[in-house]
Amino acid sequence: MKVIIVGGVAAGAGTAARLRRLDEKAEIILIERGEFISYANCGLPYHLGGVIPERESLLVSTKDKFAARFNVTVRTESEVIAIDPKGHKVTIRHNVNDQYDESYDKLVIATGSSPIMAPIPGIDDPRVMRLWSIPDMDAIDLHIKAGAKRAVVVGAGFIGLETAENLLERDMDVTVVELLDQVLPTIDKEMSTPLAQELSRHGITLKLGKKVNAIDKQSDSLAVVLDGDEKLPADLVIMSIGVKPNSELAKAAGLELGPRGHIVVNDQLQTSDPDIYAAGDAVEVMDPITGGKTAVPLAGPANKQARIVADNIVGRPSRYLGSYGASILKLGSLAAASIGITERRLKQLKLDYQKIYLHPSSSASYYPGGSPLSMKLLFAPDGKIFGAQIVGNNGVDKRIDVIATAMMNGMTAPELAAIELSYAPPFNSAKDPVNFAGMIAENVLNGDSQLAHVDDLPADTTIIDVRESAEHELGAIPNSINIPLASLRERLGELDKNKPYITSCQSGLRGYLAERIMRQNGFTVRNLSGAYLTWKHFNP
Amino acid sequence: MKVIIVGGVAAGAGTAARLRRLDEKAEIILIERGEFISYANCGLPYHLGGVIPERESLLVSTKDKFAARFNVTVRTESEVIAIDPKGHKVTIRHNVNDQYDESYDKLVIATGSSPIMAPIPGIDDPRVMRLWSIPDMDAIDLHIKAGAKRAVVVGAGFIGLETAENLLERDMDVTVVELLDQVLPTIDKEMSTPLAQELSRHGITLKLGKKVNAIDKQSDSLAVVLDGDEKLPADLVIMSIGVKPNSELAKAAGLELGPRGHIVVNDQLQTSDPDIYAAGDAVEVMDPITGGKTAVPLAGPANKQARIVADNIVGRPSRYLGSYGASILKLGSLAAASIGITERRLKQLKLDYQKIYLHPSSSASYYPGGSPLSMKLLFAPDGKIFGAQIVGNNGVDKRIDVIATAMMNGMTAPELAAIELSYAPPFNSAKDPVNFAGMIAENVLNGDSQLAHVDDLPADTTIIDVRESAEHELGAIPNSINIPLASLRERLGELDKNKPYITSCQSGLRGYLAERIMRQNGFTVRNLSGAYLTWKHFNP
Ligand SMILES: Cc1cc2nc3c(=O)[nH]c(=O)nc-3n(C[C@H](O)[C@H](O)[C@H](O)COP(=O)(O)OP(=O)(O)OC[C@H]3O[C@@H](n4cnc5c(N)ncnc54)[C@H](O)[C@@H]3O)c2cc1C
Ligand SMILES: Cc1cc2nc3c(=O)[nH]c(=O)nc-3n(C[C@H](O)[C@H](O)[C@H](O)COP(=O)(O)OP(=O)(O)OC[C@H]3O[C@@H](n4cnc5c(N)ncnc54)[C@H](O)[C@@H]3O)c2cc1C
Ligand SMILES: CC(C)(COP(=O)(O)OP(=O)(O)OC[C@H]1O[C@@H](n2cnc3c(N)ncnc32)[C@H](O)[C@@H]1OP(=O)(O)O)[C@@H](O)C(=O)NCCC(=O)NCCS
Ligand SMILES: CC(C)(COP(=O)(O)OP(=O)(O)OC[C@H]1O[C@@H](n2cnc3c(N)ncnc32)[C@H](O)[C@@H]1OP(=O)(O)O)[C@@H](O)C(=O)NCCC(=O)NCCS
Repeated sequence: MKVIIVGGVAAGAGTAARLRRLDEKAEIILIERGEFISYANCGLPYHLGGVIPERESLLVSTKDKFAARFNVTVRTESEVIAIDPKGHKVTIRHNVNDQYDESYDKLVIATGSSPIMAPIPGIDDPRVMRLWSIPDMDAIDLHIKAGAKRAVVVGAGFIGLETAENLLERDMDVTVVELLDQVLPTIDKEMSTPLAQELSRHGITLKLGKKVNAIDKQSDSLAVVLDGDEKLPADLVIMSIGVKPNSELAKAAGLELGPRGHIVVNDQLQTSDPDIYAAGDAVEVMDPITGGKTAVPLAGPANKQARIVADNIVGRPSRYLGSYGASILKLGSLAAASIGITERRLKQLKLDYQKIYLHPSSSASYYPGGSPLSMKLLFAPDGKIFGAQIVGNNGVDKRIDVIATAMMNGMTAPELAAIELSYAPPFNSAKDPVNFAGMIAENVLNGDSQLAHVDDLPADTTIIDVRESAEHELGAIPNSINIPLASLRERLGELDKNKPYITSCQSGLRGYLAERIMRQNGFTVRNLSGAYLTWKHFNP
Repeated sequence: MKVIIVGGVAAGAGTAARLRRLDEKAEIILIERGEFISYANCGLPYHLGGVIPERESLLVSTKDKFAARFNVTVRTESEVIAIDPKGHKVTIRHNVNDQYDESYDKLVIATGSSPIMAPIPGIDDPRVMRLWSIPDMDAIDLHIKAGAKRAVVVGAGFIGLETAENLLERDMDVTVVELLDQVLPTIDKEMSTPLAQELSRHGITLKLGKKVNAIDKQSDSLAVVLDGDEKLPADLVIMSIGVKPNSELAKAAGLELGPRGHIVVNDQLQTSDPDIYAAGDAVEVMDPITGGKTAVPLAGPANKQARIVADNIVGRPSRYLGSYGASILKLGSLAAASIGITERRLKQLKLDYQKIYLHPSSSASYYPGGSPLSMKLLFAPDGKIFGAQIVGNNGVDKRIDVIATAMMNGMTAPELAAIELSYAPPFNSAKDPVNFAGMIAENVLNGDSQLAHVDDLPADTTIIDVRESAEHELGAIPNSINIPLASLRERLGELDKNKPYITSCQSGLRGYLAERIMRQNGFTVRNLSGAYLTWKHFNP
């Protein structure tokens, strides 16, 4: 059997390696248009910033290692320029004078995606760069070494933010411009507040809700021109506004593409041609949450898909059941993680949902070193989990991964309460934050707790802040009245049973206790989800 | 409704709090024989060691706070000395002259467990102590302040080890004596090697496989007498050899007890008397792994059960489905976590099982700060997960909790490969350690990989170490021959197809690649699970 794999990084190299393990005799040819295969794209920003000191450590494997270890023929600087599905062959261009056909029994398209370079006037200047490959990284590095001091990063997604942070490590002046009015669009705006604050704290300038209209060439620098004609001087501009699948080849070969240009595959990762498989950033897959299709350009799915493609090629049926979009970003001392769909998206999809906010401590409150996590959980009226977002200093990854495992198993939001997680004071409290999320969700769904939300606060409802007076004085929601929880029962007479109330506290727990007391005493009351801490995220 | 709760800490206080939230009008009386309610037992060792500086921070709640916040009548220094299930009343002794009956509609037994004080001659000396409550902690603290310098901790379970570590923080000479020939009996012996090394590295003396026969009183100190008459001088002895349920009260009342004295409850946590519930360390629950019963004296289960008891009391059917025994320990810079049953226990139960070892990096190998995790996964021939054990510096808690969530959902070992976990280089690699465990398990179960194990190495089989020669020279399994992986294919001619081989490397990955190459080339070969790193755990 002869297998050609187009694209030599995560999905491509992974397929080749697994295929060799499964079939020592297959002929495997890996075609990569770039100079490198099997490298750690995800490490590029960190080598740029010096966090990963050795450039070599990004080269997870090389052409020679791949030949020696996997007996795979690797052809770098070779681009597949055409696929002939009927003829079972591809056309490969090594350089202008070296173009040839290669036949295959099975073909794997693992061409990945490319950063979108929007048609902005001036974008073709060599100082307008992208960070996508080792040569990209080297080029940016050279620029900095040559004296570039001011960087503008366009786009505040994962890669934009990682790049910004690492350019700061190189002592650059860094500005991030983002079209949306928030950073990290994979989470909802209020959840991104701590990230924006962390960026500012580190001295990165944010321009949110701003469109780049042009990049002007000045004598020896650039000016990034924003809406409203604001001009940001720059020696270096990094474009990081999203990715598009590298599917031109597939399209030209007549393979079916999805609405946004991704290669359509079935759950065995076969394209519309059964002898051609595809995996990684280039494909769209099942969205297990909405039941529709999604594209998740991340390395976890690419690696998992690679293994499944190899299995199917050797005739072992193996299925990819979809991507939930679990992702995480380190930013300064913070981590931000999410899975599933955002509230913004739920609104677009017009899905009926509930949301809760909580701010539990990452470890036992009495154990030193813990810090609050900010969590948001989105779920359906039947408890089905739509998504989760978590921001904090410690233990963010653990909680999102537990929720990911729960979602994959179809656990409902209330069922999170029952998960038995390992507990010792340095790691969590006896009820883990994930358990808290489940308990709160259960209370909301069964009506024990009725929530008010900061982004939907009725003007005519009195907010009762049940924190201690000292806490109230340090900062409170405007016009809230302070009745500390411990005196609430005896002071209920001060309140009017004919008026609606909202209870609030610091994080939502005491407000919930107050809500329960008031409701059972005949009051109309809701608890403010996430309380003052969430209010601060909406009102930074 | 009038509810009496016996025991005022995790299960008891938790039941009271939830009950109040569900029913503002119920009469709730919490009876605690000690001075304190609702305190953080789990924090005791850490306050002793000064890690948690404020004693007050251990008092999660107090009698007064409980009355004010939850309107619960708390009676401390009051012991329930008898239960009259027929008469629906308990007898309470406040002090010798103050003894009275109190009636109930529903009774909750949350009496916890007590450390076992074995009948060792000399154990009644006041310098032989235990660390179980705030008064215990205060007493030990006083002793140290009065000049105690040498401590012997008897028992190397969680609490013994945490106590040992924290006594060291107080500059004591610390020796730990353990009957088994390993520390931390909740994991298997070879997995405990790094913990034993960490203890030694910190200067704690270990006496493993030693029985304490007596504690001799010397003039102004003690001598702990071990098997073989070794005598350990001590100013302070801490007994930490296990716990027994506080079920005398339940027994005297005629409630059904299990074989080891735990209170028997149904899945609604009702005892054999339907008006009496029980929760926490005192009860035995379903073991979802074996289908039998188990007792897990940990705070996570106690807190979860508390909530379920309260729900059932107010007539909301709620079920506790069993405990998996997820647990974790911090020790120096290491963490050790486990869930489910050990290999030792599987052997006792004569269950058919497979085991795998792996040593993946906690974060991307190229990202600074990562460190290897040592993992062991135990599973049935049908893939059902029996248990997992993980030791390492970082990210141990995350992996055990993901596996806990998977086990609770009945995922098989191979299914761990497919969990979509959040990935960025500071947190893991694109294939998380949990995914690796799943892939290896899949390969073992479908026969792609046949494992050899360090504790079952046949003498007549040649071990081929496929690491680089430099690695081999730094330390290798005795009599292994070195053929680096990259040259294996071309050197196969040196090997004999009529002889069995075992491949090995550093952690198991390259050995697996070699195994695949050799098997497909007609050799009889197995891969050494966990390879040299696991060999070192068996041969420290
Ligand atoms: C800076 C950066 C940081 C990232 N950080 C993370 C992270 O933290 N977590 C995460 O999950 N993901 C991260 N990613 C995304 C992750 O790297 C990708 O999802 C993953 O690499 C996709 O794998 P792939 O094989 O589909 O595509 P790629 O890895 O992009 O590989 C595709 C390869 O195909 C080659 N190719 C394309 N067309 C042809 C052709 N016609 N002929 C020959 N070769 C061709 C390309 O040159 C390319 O090398 C990051 C990406 C970048 C760039
Ligand atoms: C030092 C230490 C460290 C620990 N570390 C951890 C850890 O890291 N992780 C973890 O999960 N677990 C840990 N635990 C275990 C955890 O604390 C217990 O599992 C949990 O407290 C059990 O809750 P419980 O309510 O059943 O019993 P307890 O918390 O022990 O409470 C029972 C209470 O009942 C009272 N009582 C008993 N009989 C009567 C009676 N007749 N009348 C009135 N009152 C009575 C007792 O005085 C006691 O206060 C630790 C325990 C200790 C001691
Ligand atoms: C280098 C590369 C080709 C390796 O591919 P690979 O061999 O499939 O992957 P790994 O090295 O992680 O090894 C996984 C294999 O080893 C096995 N394995 C891992 N640890 C093992 C152990 N301790 N014992 C036995 N087997 C083990 C796994 O089961 C798996 O084999 P399988 O797929 O046959 O089940 C690929 O990972 C790559 O190109 N990575 C860089 C590109 C990339 O991913 N970029 C994006 C992220 S930065
Ligand atoms: C202090 C103590 C009595 C509190 O019990 P509790 O009130 O049930 O527990 P918590 O304070 O964790 O609060 C949990 C409740 O608040 C709710 N809650 C938590 N965070 C919330 C938020 N942000 N918004 C709304 N509700 C929230 C939960 O849903 C839960 O209520 P529910 O059970 O009605 O659903 C009990 O935890 C205790 O005694 N702890 C110390 C003893 C101990 O556990 N020792 C062993 C470990 S060291």
